[in-house]
Amino acid sequence: MITGFETYLRTHASFSDAEIVKMVSTAKHRPLQRNELLLQQGQICRHKTFVLNGLLRIFGIGADGNESIMQFSSENSWCLDAESYHLLTPSQFGIAAIEKSEVLQWTKTDFEHLLNDIPALNSLSQQLISTNNYSSRHRLFTTLSATPEEKYEYFTRNNPHLLARLPLHMIAAYLGISIKTLTRIRHAQLHR
Amino acid sequence: MITGFETYLRTHASFSDAEIVKMVSTAKHRPLQRNELLLQQGQICRHKTFVLNGLLRIFGIGADGNESIMQFSSENSWCLDAESYHLLTPSQFGIAAIEKSEVLQWTKTDFEHLLNDIPALNSLSQQLISTNNYSSRHRLFTTLSATPEEKYEYFTRNNPHLLARLPLHMIAAYLGISIKTLTRIRHAQLHR
Repeated sequence: MITGFETYLRTHASFSDAEIVKMVSTAKHRPLQRNELLLQQGQICRHKTFVLNGLLRIFGIGADGNESIMQFSSENSWCLDAESYHLLTPSQFGIAAIEKSEVLQWTKTDFEHLLNDIPALNSLSQQLISTNNYSSRHRLFTTLSATPEEKYEYFTRNNPHLLARLPLHMIAAYLGISIKTLTRIRHAQLHR
Repeated sequence: MITGFETYLRTHASFSDAEIVKMVSTAKHRPLQRNELLLQQGQICRHKTFVLNGLLRIFGIGADGNESIMQFSSENSWCLDAESYHLLTPSQFGIAAIEKSEVLQWTKTDFEHLLNDIPALNSLSQQLISTNNYSSRHRLFTTLSATPEEKYEYFTRNNPHLLARLPLHMIAAYLGISIKTLTRIRHAQLHR
């Protein structure tokens, strides 16, 4: 179970065995039931979370009461509300498991010690922040400029591993289109 | 003209006189005509740009040929395509002056020396990156979840200083709504 995290680390940077032991020993392993809430909107995000297996989503509720999905986090990815975590402010977003999942969690204090003590983790962390920013920017551009058809096409192209694991209403909530529109697009694709 | 940059620096962190002199002396001052292009899509963004006065926009062109606006940068803010600048990849976005403007520019090499030599600039830079990420996230959420009326309301609330300086079509291109919809919303507000 922890092996996946070790493999992830070794794939992404050069960590010594001692560093990996340190990271693993300060993590808390947490199993999550399907639909279990990891972070409630309005609470402070007090942990860095790494998804060992399963699938989580970060979501917000709009003024109309509908959910919009900011991010899907599947195995071997990180999941947190960065703003709430860093500024200790109430989170605008919630985090919940879409599937039965397992995660590793670190408190902010523990993770900051790790970042100070392990240069490779610090670099990896900086690199992930940059990559996330770039993809957020691409996503914002697509959300602003693309047609619903293009949005769905980009999504299927970039997330083939997620398609069969997500209910339609979640894909729609991620793309910012209605289920009706999404159903129409998928129907048209099938008959093309 | 440079005074505005000095004031900006002193307002945001503790810089020594020598550090400010160093930053100013490595900057190139560049006046921009209205509509002048500072970065063309497809080129590499080779400068950090600080807006002394005026107003710039970062924009992309969608598959339909229409412009979507990622960001407005007015006086005392920074403006660049971070992904292109850091990874030296062709920029997906262009940068252009909306008004006659004046900017300071540093080459990547010069700015990296400054970041290494001036800890306060490094902290300020990290802090700005975080703040930008948080606001990008809020903007993505609004773009996904809000009605056109709500989008316009958030924009007017958060950017009162920009309203009179922007043509309608640019506000629409920033909000991801049609000019027709924006005109309808503004008309309804006037008659409320």
